[in-house]
Amino acid sequence: MKIFAYGIREDEQNALNEWMTNHPEVEVDYTDKLLDPQTAQLAAGADAVDVYQQLAYTPETLTALHELGINKMSLRNVGTDNIDFETARRYDFSISNVAVYSPNAIAEHAAIQGARVLRQTKPLDRKIENHDLRWAPTIGREVRMQTFGIIGTGHIGHVLIDILQGFGAKVIGYDVYRNPELEAEGIYVDTLDELYAQSDVISLHVPSLPENYHMINKETIAKMKDDVVLINVSRGDLMDIDAVIDGLDSGKIFGLAMDVYEKEVGLFNKDWSHETFPDEKIADLIARENVLVTPHTAFYTTKAVYEMVTQSMDASLAFIKGDETANEVKY
Amino acid sequence: MKIFAYGIREDEQNALNEWMTNHPEVEVDYTDKLLDPQTAQLAAGADAVDVYQQLAYTPETLTALHELGINKMSLRNVGTDNIDFETARRYDFSISNVAVYSPNAIAEHAAIQGARVLRQTKPLDRKIENHDLRWAPTIGREVRMQTFGIIGTGHIGHVLIDILQGFGAKVIGYDVYRNPELEAEGIYVDTLDELYAQSDVISLHVPSLPENYHMINKETIAKMKDDVVLINVSRGDLMDIDAVIDGLDSGKIFGLAMDVYEKEVGLFNKDWSHETFPDEKIADLIARENVLVTPHTAFYTTKAVYEMVTQSMDASLAFIKGDETANEVKY
Ligand SMILES: NC(=O)c1ccc[n+]([C@@H]2O[C@H](COP(=O)([O-])OP(=O)(O)OC[C@H]3O[C@@H](n4cnc5c(N)ncnc54)[C@H](O)[C@@H]3O)[C@@H](O)[C@H]2O)c1
Ligand SMILES: NC(=O)c1ccc[n+]([C@@H]2O[C@H](COP(=O)([O-])OP(=O)(O)OC[C@H]3O[C@@H](n4cnc5c(N)ncnc54)[C@H](O)[C@@H]3O)[C@@H](O)[C@H]2O)c1
Repeated sequence: MKIFAYGIREDEQNALNEWMTNHPEVEVDYTDKLLDPQTAQLAAGADAVDVYQQLAYTPETLTALHELGINKMSLRNVGTDNIDFETARRYDFSISNVAVYSPNAIAEHAAIQGARVLRQTKPLDRKIENHDLRWAPTIGREVRMQTFGIIGTGHIGHVLIDILQGFGAKVIGYDVYRNPELEAEGIYVDTLDELYAQSDVISLHVPSLPENYHMINKETIAKMKDDVVLINVSRGDLMDIDAVIDGLDSGKIFGLAMDVYEKEVGLFNKDWSHETFPDEKIADLIARENVLVTPHTAFYTTKAVYEMVTQSMDASLAFIKGDETANEVKY
Repeated sequence: MKIFAYGIREDEQNALNEWMTNHPEVEVDYTDKLLDPQTAQLAAGADAVDVYQQLAYTPETLTALHELGINKMSLRNVGTDNIDFETARRYDFSISNVAVYSPNAIAEHAAIQGARVLRQTKPLDRKIENHDLRWAPTIGREVRMQTFGIIGTGHIGHVLIDILQGFGAKVIGYDVYRNPELEAEGIYVDTLDELYAQSDVISLHVPSLPENYHMINKETIAKMKDDVVLINVSRGDLMDIDAVIDGLDSGKIFGLAMDVYEKEVGLFNKDWSHETFPDEKIADLIARENVLVTPHTAFYTTKAVYEMVTQSMDASLAFIKGDETANEVKY
């Protein structure tokens, strides 16, 4: 039994080594290169490949694997939009992904970054870096004194609610499908308008669906309390960023924590420090004292990476043994 | 009935205005000046003064108040070391302070700053500010995956435990007096050595007492896990800062969040940005990527300031009316 892994980063090594130690019966080889028609050859002799990349899994790439006798592929991430499923179907590929690696990674990030906006840590950090050690005027708002409105109470939203309740904050929620446990706690409001009207902090945890496109816009911001804090660690297209920038400019919005951006592909996870930065809006937001931008790193924890590596390798092994795996992608 | 308030800062105005609105029967006047023998004259006609300053309440100052017929003084803060109690006794001063204004302010700060060290937000923020939007190598450690060792489970320690449990973290505690509720949860270990050996993150919430002086030192750090995170929002003298710096240098300590410093008096709450910074150790710590220094601002929230103003004004009013107040300082 052999699994060949592509695109292994330094931060994935520990988890991979641990998996190898726990599975001495499986031969594992790997590269930091991404999978393409050329590098496919490195997998010769393997029974399955383990992958993680934004680069497309093209007909050529999948054909190259097929010609090596490989039709098992485990993704370490969730997204499968970059797979050519027609070719995969023709060659009868078994494919798995990792849909739930660590909701806590993302929920914690939302809580911490939201709390930082409330406590004004960014301007305070800047003052301290300049050796200005005065307290005023960077006074904090306590997390426990806020009403948090959580839109979407699925995996991530639910963990965030637990965290915020630990702080002693009041939490209200909105979801098209209600979680019975949270329902019993009485956290739900019936309409988004109620949530907008009552919340001091609003955090988005719904998927990117046509009906959620730009749900945060000029009209909905107008329904919110003055000095509202917005958190978006879900999907960039949930927010009309121009409307949010207007709200920041007018002072309606106290601050913003954002980990996602509608035009993030090709912008995030790249080093622009020696190049002209191509997005003026993001450059402006990064420079603001009441805005925390992170480049889609909410998920990026040792635990999440461990789960991505471990679950994907487990799925590859299940495919090889002919076992069921809950991570299989039905297509 | 008249109360005169000294040293009122901009961030205290809202709370003071609210108190005045709620007490139309009380005449209130105030200044941003601190109380000294000269400014004491401003209080002429008042029945009590409301104060907050590091400047000493000297025999001259208290005598000046006495000569105006004033012997009621309410501090908006907790510390009373700067009061000349001999003179206060001679003139039969009633004095109050605000001992518990918001344990949450400090506990939240400890949680947020500790989480930031774990999630490496400082180097990540710097990368982002330089338009380097790569994920690696600033990977985060999740709060919920850590064992937190809380030394001192009083007002602040207890709130911190609630917050960390909301994150799903494991919490162990040590205290010379155990809280029955936490005891029932089974969080206590019997010795500090056990706490040092088991904790991924250690946070100090004990007072500054001779037996706690430099409790974090070369020997105790050696007993800790590798990659330990230290949090001190309590008192500077609980830590031997040289031993902590050695631990940071050797890599034994993953990171540090500190809001207090043994030599903070005269250093914190001042603007050094246009002067030579007088403390090389703090300058070095401020510059480090895995250290978060704040200048004793953990308490500095709108809620805490509200409590300090409201409780002190309430105490002044109680003194004037001859009512009891739990905030009275017995001396
Ligand atoms: N920033 C990151 O690193 C990162 C990582 C993983 C996931 N995410 C994003 O986080 C979001 C939430 O993920 P999850 O795992 O919690 O998903 P989930 O499916 O568990 O929960 C989503 C919830 O949203 C609800 N929902 C859908 N449409 C809604 C609407 N219009 N109004 C109210 N509720 C609605 C669903 O009923 C569900 O309860 C997704 O957008 C996902 O893409 C971000
Ligand atoms: N950074 C700030 O802005 C700020 C503000 C307020 C208070 N503080 C500091 O926070 C600390 C805790 O404050 P609190 O209000 O929680 O106090 P507290 O009196 O409620 O709790 C202190 C606890 O420490 C315990 N203790 C004392 N000595 C001990 C020892 N040697 N070992 C173990 N436990 C011991 C006590 O039994 C008590 O339970 C104090 O040092 C205080 O000065 C800091």
